[in-house]
Amino acid sequence: MPQTPHIERHFTSSEIVRDVVIGMSDGLTVPFALAAGLTGAITSTGIIVTAGLAEIAAGSIAMGLGGYLAAKSDAEHYAKEREREKREVAEIPHEEMREVAEVFQAYGLTEDETWPIVQALKRHPQNWIDFMMRFELGLEKPDPKRALISAITIASAYIAGGFVPLAPYIFARSSAVALLISVVLTLIALFVFGYVKGRFTGMKPLRSALQTALIGSVAAGAAFGIATLIGGHS
Amino acid sequence: MPQTPHIERHFTSSEIVRDVVIGMSDGLTVPFALAAGLTGAITSTGIIVTAGLAEIAAGSIAMGLGGYLAAKSDAEHYAKEREREKREVAEIPHEEMREVAEVFQAYGLTEDETWPIVQALKRHPQNWIDFMMRFELGLEKPDPKRALISAITIASAYIAGGFVPLAPYIFARSSAVALLISVVLTLIALFVFGYVKGRFTGMKPLRSALQTALIGSVAAGAAFGIATLIGGHS
Repeated sequence: MPQTPHIERHFTSSEIVRDVVIGMSDGLTVPFALAAGLTGAITSTGIIVTAGLAEIAAGSIAMGLGGYLAAKSDAEHYAKEREREKREVAEIPHEEMREVAEVFQAYGLTEDETWPIVQALKRHPQNWIDFMMRFELGLEKPDPKRALISAITIASAYIAGGFVPLAPYIFARSSAVALLISVVLTLIALFVFGYVKGRFTGMKPLRSALQTALIGSVAAGAAFGIATLIGGHS
Repeated sequence: MPQTPHIERHFTSSEIVRDVVIGMSDGLTVPFALAAGLTGAITSTGIIVTAGLAEIAAGSIAMGLGGYLAAKSDAEHYAKEREREKREVAEIPHEEMREVAEVFQAYGLTEDETWPIVQALKRHPQNWIDFMMRFELGLEKPDPKRALISAITIASAYIAGGFVPLAPYIFARSSAVALLISVVLTLIALFVFGYVKGRFTGMKPLRSALQTALIGSVAAGAAFGIATLIGGHS
């Protein structure tokens, strides 16, 4: 069975890749757009760095802690639904047998053809419950260690991404020079990140690279426009 | 069959709810934390409002446009995988039949018991392809209109959420007063939002309310701490 280990491997690596992608997409984009936007209204690089670091702290915590608690909730939701299926399999087996049959009738099997499946699942209640979780409810068993790893991965990727657009403002003398270096650096980073993301997610790498750079550019342009428009009030 | 329409309804409403939750969670949290953080370093409410609006523009575009392009990619990925399954079902049907059998053998069915399923699917190639997409690859058919609706929902929820913490800085005279009103307003909003989110997602509402308020508080506290620490440099 070459298919099963293949799927497993794909699944595990894709979860970490997915978390890095989630964190780094926003980490590269939002601090970039914020810093670029503020340059449209403020000349002090100190304030832009302060705002940028505050944003990186806020964004990484919101995404990391949010992801952690969401994963914990998913795990509890799975456990609760599994308990319910377990109870239903024990208490109203005929109803559950009908539900198994319905899953397959949707794919053109007749009631007679679903009979052996139902009977086989009945012999193994554990398998039956697992089957209902995946095929009736569409829920995958969550890995209990995922929540913490996922939170740390997302937050770290956000911080790593966020320092790319912000670094020029820390080192450059004027905000205009910093903006120029930040735009060049971040567009290169977004392009490379989009390219690598494309390779991992099965999308055309070049198209993924261009899309990722586009999102960053549009967000930064809009932030710059808004900050320039209202900047006069401050 | 009361189960099928029930699942459908649940699925559609939960997608819009999920998008509102995604947008509003970050929209309430990140601009709140950024504004609170900047108050630790800057006294001008004008600069805080500028930074806040720039962040709302950047965040809503990054999330909305990012979500739009991700949904488009998912739809293309699904179409590409479906083409491949279609080709495999036509060209190497025996390999595909073996894969169907393996899906069920994982749940304790013997090879004999999987035979009628395989035969029934063979009679309906369209159903067979759909079956492989869902049960072998675990891919759900994406709704082609989802991408745009999802993007607009996420961005709107982000903007709506972001104005709650920012409004006090627009109207209050001093940044200290604005911070106080912003903290009170946003904690109430996070609590109510978390409560409603809990009801929709099947989590205990009170626990969801407390968790949501906690994420906002920790993110805002960290942003405030960092901005206060480095604020002296500006």
